Amino acid sequence: MPIDENLTDFSETVRPEWVDYNGHMNVAFYVLIFDHATDAFLEQIGMDQNLRDTTGSSVFVAESHITYTNEVMEGERVRVTSRLIAHDQKRLHMFLEMFREDGLLAATIELMILHVNLKTRKVGPFPDDILHNVSNHADQDADKPLPSQLGHVISIPSSSNKT
Amino acid sequence: MPIDENLTDFSETVRPEWVDYNGHMNVAFYVLIFDHATDAFLEQIGMDQNLRDTTGSSVFVAESHITYTNEVMEGERVRVTSRLIAHDQKRLHMFLEMFREDGLLAATIELMILHVNLKTRKVGPFPDDILHNVSNHADQDADKPLPSQLGHVISIPSSSNKT
Repeated sequence: MPIDENLTDFSETVRPEWVDYNGHMNVAFYVLIFDHATDAFLEQIGMDQNLRDTTGSSVFVAESHITYTNEVMEGERVRVTSRLIAHDQKRLHMFLEMFREDGLLAATIELMILHVNLKTRKVGPFPDDILHNVSNHADQDADKPLPSQLGHVISIPSSSNKT
Repeated sequence: MPIDENLTDFSETVRPEWVDYNGHMNVAFYVLIFDHATDAFLEQIGMDQNLRDTTGSSVFVAESHITYTNEVMEGERVRVTSRLIAHDQKRLHMFLEMFREDGLLAATIELMILHVNLKTRKVGPFPDDILHNVSNHADQDADKPLPSQLGHVISIPSSSNKT
């Protein structure tokens, strides 16, 4: 996968089979690109195929919140930035932004990620060296302001909830 | 697409190419199945390919919130139920649940859906006859209790936000 020099930067091109009847990238494939970007982040902190093969240490997504802001078309190359919002011994709270080639924000995703052992399928603490890498990364992100999309609740105000 | 007799029931089988390195359906393809189930719901209220072709009337997803509760494996057939939480003249607030063959909840998605004209790519009111169908459907769902996943905010309590 193509990874920029920046630790938290990832880019990918929209495939023809990801486009739906509206002529733009389907909602599911934003999530797939965000998942690839999350994988790239995880590899940088040591959560890679070798670790999975030797220890069974992996992650599952428990929850996500996505905002779709601008359409993305076939063949477009999008860039994704990742940041760590919070963590504990077994969880990562992450936030990723996807940008179009013209610089406009395409989408955001907020993720709750759990450390899981693939042999038992149970949640448990990250290995110590991974946790060390997570803590180092958390320090880098600590001073950034929180994104406005974080924790947004989906609703239609009841005053407009009629036809 | 296979649609059960029940208006809001949809089912689909997990394809091999939807499985990731964890040996289960990747997060993106839950969203794809939910999108297919949403399409089935929309077709039932008249938002189909014929309407798109003749009027440009379609929908875009603006925001979604997903909870992943249980893994789903290759070849498994999942069932999705859909319900309307709220609506106004140009928006649908929907909630869908995905169930495994053993009856366990696999995932939920909460969606904010916007009516869009594909020619202008602008948000605007649903056609009158569609809005009539939406209102009829809303009446059917009005007395059901709200799902616990609705509006849940992703967070790690700060007391555990250290390693």
